[in-house]
Amino acid sequence: MRPVEPVAASLCDYDHECDVLVVGFGCAGAAAAYEAAAAGADVIVLDRAGGPGGSSAMSGGELYLGGGTPVQKACGFDDTPEDMFAYLRAALGPHADEEKLRLYCDGSVEHFQWFRDRGLTFNERLYDAPSWMPPTEDGLMWLGENAWPYNTVARPAPRGHRPTAAGFGGWLIMEKLVEAATSAGAVSHTDTLATNLVVDGRGRVTGVVARRYGARVTYRARKAVILTTGGFVDSEEMLEQHAPVLLGHGKVSDGLDDGSGIRMAAAIGAATRRMSVVEIALTVLPAMITRGMLVNAHGQRFVSEDVYPGLVSVAAVQHQPGPYWAIIDEEGYEDIPRRDLWGVRPEHVTETLAELEEALGMPPGALESTVATYNRHAEQGEDPYFHKDAKWLRPLKGPFAAVDPRLGFNTGDRESAGAGTGVAGFTLGGLHTTVDGVVLNLSGEPILGLYAAGRASSGIHGEGYISGTSLGDGTFFGRRAGRTAAQETPVSRP
Amino acid sequence: MRPVEPVAASLCDYDHECDVLVVGFGCAGAAAAYEAAAAGADVIVLDRAGGPGGSSAMSGGELYLGGGTPVQKACGFDDTPEDMFAYLRAALGPHADEEKLRLYCDGSVEHFQWFRDRGLTFNERLYDAPSWMPPTEDGLMWLGENAWPYNTVARPAPRGHRPTAAGFGGWLIMEKLVEAATSAGAVSHTDTLATNLVVDGRGRVTGVVARRYGARVTYRARKAVILTTGGFVDSEEMLEQHAPVLLGHGKVSDGLDDGSGIRMAAAIGAATRRMSVVEIALTVLPAMITRGMLVNAHGQRFVSEDVYPGLVSVAAVQHQPGPYWAIIDEEGYEDIPRRDLWGVRPEHVTETLAELEEALGMPPGALESTVATYNRHAEQGEDPYFHKDAKWLRPLKGPFAAVDPRLGFNTGDRESAGAGTGVAGFTLGGLHTTVDGVVLNLSGEPILGLYAAGRASSGIHGEGYISGTSLGDGTFFGRRAGRTAAQETPVSRP
Repeated sequence: MRPVEPVAASLCDYDHECDVLVVGFGCAGAAAAYEAAAAGADVIVLDRAGGPGGSSAMSGGELYLGGGTPVQKACGFDDTPEDMFAYLRAALGPHADEEKLRLYCDGSVEHFQWFRDRGLTFNERLYDAPSWMPPTEDGLMWLGENAWPYNTVARPAPRGHRPTAAGFGGWLIMEKLVEAATSAGAVSHTDTLATNLVVDGRGRVTGVVARRYGARVTYRARKAVILTTGGFVDSEEMLEQHAPVLLGHGKVSDGLDDGSGIRMAAAIGAATRRMSVVEIALTVLPAMITRGMLVNAHGQRFVSEDVYPGLVSVAAVQHQPGPYWAIIDEEGYEDIPRRDLWGVRPEHVTETLAELEEALGMPPGALESTVATYNRHAEQGEDPYFHKDAKWLRPLKGPFAAVDPRLGFNTGDRESAGAGTGVAGFTLGGLHTTVDGVVLNLSGEPILGLYAAGRASSGIHGEGYISGTSLGDGTFFGRRAGRTAAQETPVSRP
Repeated sequence: MRPVEPVAASLCDYDHECDVLVVGFGCAGAAAAYEAAAAGADVIVLDRAGGPGGSSAMSGGELYLGGGTPVQKACGFDDTPEDMFAYLRAALGPHADEEKLRLYCDGSVEHFQWFRDRGLTFNERLYDAPSWMPPTEDGLMWLGENAWPYNTVARPAPRGHRPTAAGFGGWLIMEKLVEAATSAGAVSHTDTLATNLVVDGRGRVTGVVARRYGARVTYRARKAVILTTGGFVDSEEMLEQHAPVLLGHGKVSDGLDDGSGIRMAAAIGAATRRMSVVEIALTVLPAMITRGMLVNAHGQRFVSEDVYPGLVSVAAVQHQPGPYWAIIDEEGYEDIPRRDLWGVRPEHVTETLAELEEALGMPPGALESTVATYNRHAEQGEDPYFHKDAKWLRPLKGPFAAVDPRLGFNTGDRESAGAGTGVAGFTLGGLHTTVDGVVLNLSGEPILGLYAAGRASSGIHGEGYISGTSLGDGTFFGRRAGRTAAQETPVSRP
């Protein structure tokens, strides 16, 4: 591993100087840089890559926003911050950070407006079907808010906001946010990898040491350093130590999320939080499992198939014995709109469940008993186990098919997320910060001059994840960190 | 939280001085102190309590040992280190530390002899029934080695070694180890709470600052400080940040496992590992679930009921929706030896499964279909789902009963472990150490002068736990740390 020990300020001869130094130009860094620069601070943003964007630019671009945004209103939904909070507390839980989550929900309408003011547009149309990502340019989508048990704790409203883009829209968000940050005056230094924090005799962070094309380059930050370096899914060592569940699986990242910011800060005594928590995506097709079912290696159902597929994925990969199987009958398969099929074809097609369970290596009777119970209840329009919405309930009858998520999707324009295991993810644990992004030390006290946001920090998440909450909390708390850092009293040279 | 920032050596005027300072007088501290003193080092052991023992002294006293110990041989088992390793890799996994585990298994016969040489005796008799703790003084017990799937990866041999004591035997182990350490020359300072590490200008740990009866007292360690301060189950803040699954549950500890050693070391840049991993015990009765079954809130089985009950507990609490129910029929209940009943009585007694599932709030048919499938296979002497041993397989027939683990045990001589939730546990994550106990920093390099062992460190465990492996690896790696620390070159005063 690259050494991350801090460097003493007395040993540093600075090459560059600014008020606020932002390390990492993904969504959190761009939001922080924009706000700090807009507040009058002299801002430099470093990125180790040849240009800004980071993992954010490669993402789907969904933003989890609500509480009554104009898009929600135009689509006929009367949302409130309280309902948004109640849903996210349940869906991002257990053990979501309620203080951060409360601020995030209360500020969501303003945050939506902030994105619009940065030049993003959102079509005022709802995509009303379960999907990882709509095949349309509709600006609003459900992210499981209308599924049990979440529809019992909060009034359902769709909160997946999508900027107008065909397919993955993360690049567009980053284009606008980078433009905003640089227009506000932030200066970008690319190909510049921060390697160590610089600390003065009082333990205050005063800058960073970096490398650019093999040469050492040093930065002094008069007010603060903001770490927005992303998570650590690209570090095998850190996964091994903190989140081994993702070892060997696909990585949802730009390949540079190696946890360097987390390690640099921890090396000066910063506290971390929830380092084992991860986002997980299993390549199951929402349109297929809602119409059929998802079972574990024993042929047991374990989750309502119409919740947000990220929660289906966690329920499977973290908690159930695999392999997992999407089970569908012919009528269900034929009912799936082609655009929602993502290239997934039926496998293991059999006339009877006895043949199917044998083909899948399950105990005799495993699928037969699960489907018999399911069908008996479906005839009554009920799913007393998981309360899947009645519109998906229908007795399944042969011929049947089973689909293995490890086969992935085949959409033609993008590789399967699964990389052979059917699973891909990223990390959600990181530095322990206040709601203003101040990094805390092991005694629970602020580390002077050090902030963090985005996946370098632990955000609003407990053990669950919903699409759009990482771009969402990265930008929301990145903005707060940038604003707060800009107000710090500048430190004069030692 | 108590501040844990390091203190500069230049600010310290030491009250006491030694070669090796051991912080915490539980099993890891006692083993380290003994070995360091036996190797000729001048040793002081601190403990914050009024006497030594810690959580180890309150434990059951099982030691996970094998590979061909005299007790195993006398009981007719021909064990090998390879079988022990294969079992533990599976049962302590996924993601057990294989390097530490290999040493632990290869050194296990010697480690057993070390305990005998310290004065512990072990009756050469096997207790041959599933139990959290035998009601006898038999010196050997199964810890799930003979249950599927573990019996498919390693030749089964019982490895739960129990020193001769009635009931919980941890106090006896600690009595012998404390006696050994003090006889070898280690000096004990009780009522002394270490609060901060002392670090010199080169980042080397040279001592600790402590408090005794409100007064500051300082210790210089010429060779090394060994942190054996235990885990962090007694710190609500640390549980909230790292292992929230245990929040609100019972704590298996002496009440003083607040993670202070982990925080002190992390404050000087020590790396931590697997902070989310925990031991969990659910108050289910092995003798009851082996004869019946354990189901989740949906009436589904999810684990072979004859694996070690700690693994049953993890499978339930970490992965299944509760409440959990032990299901038993009259014949099965009557078959349980009274001494294995631990005061547990049948509840929710009904003639039919339909009545029982209704009483438990399960969907109609939930238990009926689970038991029908179970019975159909049991008639053939098979359990194709979980391969429970054939000796436990018998079709269940009414009247039936369900028992809620939240009711706990009622053995008369000790409180239920469950404390109302049916769940109690302790933490397994901690400082990242080498096999010799050297604490590593965030760059993966040794922190000079700092060692750790026991639950202050991350040991052999992945996500699973088996009784006797915490006392086992605490003493085993405590010994290695003590020996290695004693060989360090003493640092002269600055």
